Amino acid sequence: MATHRFIPKQFHNTIGSHAPVLSVGDGDTVVTESLDAHGFDRHGRKSADGPNPMTGPFHVAGAEPGDALRVRIERITMIRATGWTFQVLSPNVVNPNAVGRFPARVVTDWIIDIAAGRARLAKPPAALRNWSVAVEPMIGCFGVAPATGQAITTATSGPYGGNMDYRGFAAGIDVLFPVSAPGGLFFLGDVHAAQGDGEIVGTGIETAAEIAFTVAVVKKKPIGWPRGSNESEIFTVGNARPLDQALQHATTEMLDWLIQDYGLDEVAASHLMGQAVRYDIANVFNPAYSVVCRIGREWLTDPMP
Amino acid sequence: MATHRFIPKQFHNTIGSHAPVLSVGDGDTVVTESLDAHGFDRHGRKSADGPNPMTGPFHVAGAEPGDALRVRIERITMIRATGWTFQVLSPNVVNPNAVGRFPARVVTDWIIDIAAGRARLAKPPAALRNWSVAVEPMIGCFGVAPATGQAITTATSGPYGGNMDYRGFAAGIDVLFPVSAPGGLFFLGDVHAAQGDGEIVGTGIETAAEIAFTVAVVKKKPIGWPRGSNESEIFTVGNARPLDQALQHATTEMLDWLIQDYGLDEVAASHLMGQAVRYDIANVFNPAYSVVCRIGREWLTDPMP
Amino acid sequence: MATHRFIPKQFHNTIGSHAPVLSVGDGDTVVTESLDAHGFDRHGRKSADGPNPMTGPFHVAGAEPGDALRVRIERITMIRATGWTFQVLSPNVVNPNAVGRFPARVVTDWIIDIAAGRARLAKPPAALRNWSVAVEPMIGCFGVAPATGQAITTATSGPYGGNMDYRGFAAGIDVLFPVSAPGGLFFLGDVHAAQGDGEIVGTGIETAAEIAFTVAVVKKKPIGWPRGSNESEIFTVGNARPLDQALQHATTEMLDWLIQDYGLDEVAASHLMGQAVRYDIANVFNPAYSVVCRIGREWLTDPMP
Amino acid sequence: MATHRFIPKQFHNTIGSHAPVLSVGDGDTVVTESLDAHGFDRHGRKSADGPNPMTGPFHVAGAEPGDALRVRIERITMIRATGWTFQVLSPNVVNPNAVGRFPARVVTDWIIDIAAGRARLAKPPAALRNWSVAVEPMIGCFGVAPATGQAITTATSGPYGGNMDYRGFAAGIDVLFPVSAPGGLFFLGDVHAAQGDGEIVGTGIETAAEIAFTVAVVKKKPIGWPRGSNESEIFTVGNARPLDQALQHATTEMLDWLIQDYGLDEVAASHLMGQAVRYDIANVFNPAYSVVCRIGREWLTDPMP
Repeated sequence: MATHRFIPKQFHNTIGSHAPVLSVGDGDTVVTESLDAHGFDRHGRKSADGPNPMTGPFHVAGAEPGDALRVRIERITMIRATGWTFQVLSPNVVNPNAVGRFPARVVTDWIIDIAAGRARLAKPPAALRNWSVAVEPMIGCFGVAPATGQAITTATSGPYGGNMDYRGFAAGIDVLFPVSAPGGLFFLGDVHAAQGDGEIVGTGIETAAEIAFTVAVVKKKPIGWPRGSNESEIFTVGNARPLDQALQHATTEMLDWLIQDYGLDEVAASHLMGQAVRYDIANVFNPAYSVVCRIGREWLTDPMP
Repeated sequence: MATHRFIPKQFHNTIGSHAPVLSVGDGDTVVTESLDAHGFDRHGRKSADGPNPMTGPFHVAGAEPGDALRVRIERITMIRATGWTFQVLSPNVVNPNAVGRFPARVVTDWIIDIAAGRARLAKPPAALRNWSVAVEPMIGCFGVAPATGQAITTATSGPYGGNMDYRGFAAGIDVLFPVSAPGGLFFLGDVHAAQGDGEIVGTGIETAAEIAFTVAVVKKKPIGWPRGSNESEIFTVGNARPLDQALQHATTEMLDWLIQDYGLDEVAASHLMGQAVRYDIANVFNPAYSVVCRIGREWLTDPMP
Repeated sequence: MATHRFIPKQFHNTIGSHAPVLSVGDGDTVVTESLDAHGFDRHGRKSADGPNPMTGPFHVAGAEPGDALRVRIERITMIRATGWTFQVLSPNVVNPNAVGRFPARVVTDWIIDIAAGRARLAKPPAALRNWSVAVEPMIGCFGVAPATGQAITTATSGPYGGNMDYRGFAAGIDVLFPVSAPGGLFFLGDVHAAQGDGEIVGTGIETAAEIAFTVAVVKKKPIGWPRGSNESEIFTVGNARPLDQALQHATTEMLDWLIQDYGLDEVAASHLMGQAVRYDIANVFNPAYSVVCRIGREWLTDPMP
Repeated sequence: MATHRFIPKQFHNTIGSHAPVLSVGDGDTVVTESLDAHGFDRHGRKSADGPNPMTGPFHVAGAEPGDALRVRIERITMIRATGWTFQVLSPNVVNPNAVGRFPARVVTDWIIDIAAGRARLAKPPAALRNWSVAVEPMIGCFGVAPATGQAITTATSGPYGGNMDYRGFAAGIDVLFPVSAPGGLFFLGDVHAAQGDGEIVGTGIETAAEIAFTVAVVKKKPIGWPRGSNESEIFTVGNARPLDQALQHATTEMLDWLIQDYGLDEVAASHLMGQAVRYDIANVFNPAYSVVCRIGREWLTDPMP
């Protein structure tokens, strides 16, 4: 149960079976840093190219294909007083005939007041002069090496995780990824100081961060899509376009989870899900959109042993 | 500000410019009843055919095309000790290759314990033996006569409202519909005792209900899609397939609302929405899916006069 | 087998159970006229409002719900030397970030040289100075009263037909529509002098026309979606969004046709369709998109008696 | 202008920046072989795993990022008397509630009569007893190393090409791919003896083949998506889900091509495309669907020098 402090020097723009930067044990904790989505570090220095340069991969002892890798996000700490967003709604989230109403997309600076836990536009428009946002850090892009030796751009996501841009990936969450390569090969980066549903301006408040996470190998646990949980709920994530298909993936993964671990069959799970599920639209910006299917723990019995 | 008690005797399976069953004044309250989605009344008697037989239409004095009709849901009261659902996930919400895992869809009975405010399956599967659901009534289908003299099946929805099946349409909500016909012509029905996000088994807990609502005409208020609000938030609804398009409608309507009533322009509204919006997936079952775009009132200044 | 000559004086912007303008016998032929999509007649006079004002409905003796109405397009004749189109690709058919490259949409005039059978822009851009298009007339919008008493805008389409904007709906085609109302109630209009696949500028070359068609009732022939045929092929049409769903409707309707009339089962039909189908994208502009699934007659045995 | 005969011994299930198996000159021709989609060779021996094991990559001298690689399919020759397909429509191409009508998917054998140029089911159902299909070979999966060092499963496709499963990729076609890696790194495989539109049973008639192709580097030719041409037409391919987005990519690529090489601007190109385009649905089975946008050469002037 060692704790590793790792300062990254090289970064990846794909998630794949790259050489590990560090090997850690099952149960270990890693404290490391991430660049922002354009590759700027805690000091604002360009340290890598975008999109979403990844810290890692971390090799986890004992993780084999067919297992799942559990990653607990222990802490996401703001380490830079600046962030950035785009300033217009993404063309794909508004009616096609409204696209022409917006000016061109530009990077817009934010001030992150770390002590106060608030972020605000550096040069706000008059109507937002006194506007600020609570800092609620989340990991935009993380996951494990995908199946069949693929290496996939960090712009997108899939069954292995990736650029899901879900505001729910915050401190205190456990996430389960399907292991496809020996050691799992875990990558992370693209932290947002805050983000609304859907990442509809194409960014959260992009910044560098320090992240602490703990890994655990769950042996012989084949899963189809990322699964998450905290004290109050469990959830699944589907990544695809259109949203309809992302929802199908998330819903089917939840169905399978309820059947595998909670002793329900298709009909009982349908009854439960019909009344209990909540959906989040994590992002509608990336090449693959992400939909989250959640169920509160109050609806669930203890998982099967 | 009269209160009308209206017992419906005829019902419509389309929302259109049908002859009003009652004319009411601007500001009046109506207390009426609705059948369940298959046309059974408070006594369990078949009183109309499905889908979703509507009570109404109610003609509201002074409502003209170009106005909006504000409907406040004052109260939705359970009046029948039984409800029904389907018992399997709808084929369109799971991965296509999982569709074959489910038995055929059948109507399944529920017991509604009105005093206790809980609903439970009449014959639950063993795994759900002690399972019950809080009664949280909502209106599945309501709206006003659509544009250009259309009459549209109550199975679907559009700019005029209709079968949106959103669990947020509960007591205490104000909803704004775009008026296309003189008097607005308001219909309502299809109450659910409860429903999860997405209406993914194809139903909520379908039942008859008593509903009290109050109407108000907002003059010269052209809106594109239904808008709602309560004390804590405002929201817009988009109805279309795929979910991507429903989201585009809801997002564009929220953009327009912020610009029209809250003094923002496209850029300021984008900044706000990028950090503040929450999306709900109301239904992914009907011919048109429904997505809700919400913003908490804490993000908003007072609306413009 | 009478031939009726009918000059329309009133027009409908919805397809629904409206009062018939003419009752005809099973097997009769009607020669009539249609306005262009904006309501201008053969003389260029505004005679109705858009969208797509319909001639009809025509009541066909003996057509009952559960039957199909066969409509043979005998002839579509150009009767006006002018047409119009839009001049830019529709925002929904290009990448969202390309939408801003186009000027605003305007109506653009065309000259139709009826004798030569060619159409050309009235004021062509220099690069298209010598460009003209073969006149290949088609019916943009036609169909029968939809189910459950609906009246649906002529901007869209559904199982009953409607605004399908398929260039294949030309002279010599037989189309089968599902009858939902007594007499079928057949409407037609929105003729295009020519159109590419997808109607991607939002119009064909819109013009007034004279149309001759012949109706026949096919008793007890429940079909789900429009079916068409000519000497060389049979085809089905699905209308929905996204294209994926329109394709599902057209494909399932073809499957059912092969099973019902050609003696195949699901597996044999799959084998045949897997090798033989051709898809056309009829329109990707209207609220419902239209996809056509075609099979050449050389692949088919004689239909079952 | 050498001709290389290359017998592959190793195969890739991803398209990426793998070590070249052969370096060829600009203008050279390669004659090689491909396995079928499950990895069986001309003798029916399992030689690699699926999906779609690729022959290659071939390094082309002088190809640099920003160039395009032109590949002419000279010849696709059948070399095995057997092929296989699936026997049921894919669940995603029929209405969701029709999915349950089909038996489980199994591999089904075909006989390829190379001399006669016909293929037939080895054990046809009675209704297809005398049924055979013309052999019209096509390449299901080919392309170049994708951008940013990615390695992407041969199950899917993207801007770099990949598993597009388009029946139009037959002998006599020139295809242009966007070069992202030095040498281009061209892969090919997954030949089908025949296939209908959409690959709706999830396969063509899968078989091994001998393929002759010629490569040429087009310097400084940045393109977004694969472009193809033969004597009668030019076409572009978009790969994405849903079909709507694949169509947007193909349409925008055609727009750009007409502007770059044929001297049109957005309005002139819109006019031309509005009347002239034809769309093909190449596949609706793979993770990315493929739509083809075609324009006949009769509509085009000579390309700009």
